[in-house]
Amino acid sequence: MPEAAQPKVAPSGRVVELAGGVGGAKLAQGLQAQVGDRLTVVVNTGDDVERHGLAIWPDHDTVMYTLAGLDDRERGWGIRDETWTAMDQLGRLGEETWFRLGDRDLATHIVRTARLAAGGRPTDVARHLQRALGVAATILPMTDAPVRTEVRTDEGWLDFQTYFVGRQQQPTVHEVRFRGVDEAAQTAEVVASFDRLGPTDAIVVAPSNPIVSIGPLVALRGLRSAIAAARERGAPVVAVSGIVGGRALKGPADRMLVSLGHESSALGVARLYAEWVDTFVIDTIDADLAPAIQALGLRVVVTDTIMTDDAARTRLAGDVLRAAIP
Amino acid sequence: MPEAAQPKVAPSGRVVELAGGVGGAKLAQGLQAQVGDRLTVVVNTGDDVERHGLAIWPDHDTVMYTLAGLDDRERGWGIRDETWTAMDQLGRLGEETWFRLGDRDLATHIVRTARLAAGGRPTDVARHLQRALGVAATILPMTDAPVRTEVRTDEGWLDFQTYFVGRQQQPTVHEVRFRGVDEAAQTAEVVASFDRLGPTDAIVVAPSNPIVSIGPLVALRGLRSAIAAARERGAPVVAVSGIVGGRALKGPADRMLVSLGHESSALGVARLYAEWVDTFVIDTIDADLAPAIQALGLRVVVTDTIMTDDAARTRLAGDVLRAAIP
Repeated sequence: MPEAAQPKVAPSGRVVELAGGVGGAKLAQGLQAQVGDRLTVVVNTGDDVERHGLAIWPDHDTVMYTLAGLDDRERGWGIRDETWTAMDQLGRLGEETWFRLGDRDLATHIVRTARLAAGGRPTDVARHLQRALGVAATILPMTDAPVRTEVRTDEGWLDFQTYFVGRQQQPTVHEVRFRGVDEAAQTAEVVASFDRLGPTDAIVVAPSNPIVSIGPLVALRGLRSAIAAARERGAPVVAVSGIVGGRALKGPADRMLVSLGHESSALGVARLYAEWVDTFVIDTIDADLAPAIQALGLRVVVTDTIMTDDAARTRLAGDVLRAAIP
Repeated sequence: MPEAAQPKVAPSGRVVELAGGVGGAKLAQGLQAQVGDRLTVVVNTGDDVERHGLAIWPDHDTVMYTLAGLDDRERGWGIRDETWTAMDQLGRLGEETWFRLGDRDLATHIVRTARLAAGGRPTDVARHLQRALGVAATILPMTDAPVRTEVRTDEGWLDFQTYFVGRQQQPTVHEVRFRGVDEAAQTAEVVASFDRLGPTDAIVVAPSNPIVSIGPLVALRGLRSAIAAARERGAPVVAVSGIVGGRALKGPADRMLVSLGHESSALGVARLYAEWVDTFVIDTIDADLAPAIQALGLRVVVTDTIMTDDAARTRLAGDVLRAAIP
């Protein structure tokens, strides 16, 4: 089927992806392979954290390193050809070391922190780093304002990285909040990326954690309105389920869905997105869920959603873009 | 002469060393071997610089790494077991890389910068780092206020590190200034370290660059008064010449002395120190200069001042302490 390998998105079509970390980055790579610099990735900033006085943006950097071709495939996170000398020395200096920062990765945080301290806007600082690494797409922080994801567990409220890295996602999550999100303004760049969209473009929701990766993005009032306005102009919204066969491919999304009273399935995710998404992409393994998801008013596309290698990323991105504009 | 190997400084004697970088660090190591935690090193801060948003204190760190036994002997600067991954990546991110910062060294700058940004006083931050690395002696920045050494060359005024590292000390220095020194207050810790001194203690001036290492220290009003007050109480001041056989052992001190109208010799250095020093230690190679230096009103001690290894550092420190309290 050579025809199927050709995405139907118009050559002039623009794509805006809403993304968290690893899953968002993999699909972003496929989308970048399909549409190049017509891709804008709006990334969750709720996971951002300050460590050792440095501004760390895990989701932004995962997407950036992946789109720059610098991601470490074996480790599954961070940057390739990494060393850990500074971390070792930070430990000797009495610093906590559970949040591992490689030497190459540190360069990103150092440059970012210096530019922010000098008054740089987060969006401008992000673009500087992306350009320096030769990323074709545009990666935009969802806001320049501080938003911090926190989860309530039996140990009380934990900031996201303490839960995610420090406690290795072991505590059960009873509640999630995005501190600062009500006051956070959308950026001109994020608004503009949506304002350009019409019927031959697409908004793609990555197979990221629906609660703590996509959640903060759509909790942002300005971003929600921008999506709504784009839909009114006919721009399609297509989401990919990050839950396959009832399990999260990576991370705690499945357990989090359950402990928060949702269903850990593609259907559970579809219910969370039903109001603002047109098309839902599920894995072939979940094909039997299609009728229930269609009953929510969503169009369903069934395909192989597991992105094992570069080819699979590009193929899924093509499927997603064809699903968006049928 | 087993007797000669025993310094005459009293067991209760305290030693305050005024020091710049490498020469000061080597003698500090010898002094620490002689008197342990009774050593306080007051370091020049005029070379301090901000790079990539990080607070870099070259003289403090050289002394700290040396006293912690972490200094890289082969390279002659920085810390042992160093790697350069972050620097490589900083270059890829478009940063200037002529000021080389190793990954292990970066940990020091990261912790320091974070603590300063959190409102830490430079002296407290310095002590935290020294304690973390197990340094027996106390290393004090000469002031908590910013003082910046600048040199006027044919290329105009350059900040010290641009001249020293960036231009590799090639431009001729016509003038030197210590920006901020007139407003810089002495710290309580520096004052206290001198206030404790009496006739059985010693103030030691390291064989550092007399213009840009010792110069900023004695340009600091509070420090000059503290030395004067200690001398009035009978505390001896002994200086070691950093010029041997007319040449600086390291760095541009010899050329700098000449271009600023001084003599590049132990005598030239002695003339700069004559007003506030009691005893001057010169190398055996310069023994013929002793009468001229004595004519300045200084006592002269002649010994081998070249610190080739640990034993030589300890031996010279012993000689210096014996010279201080004859």
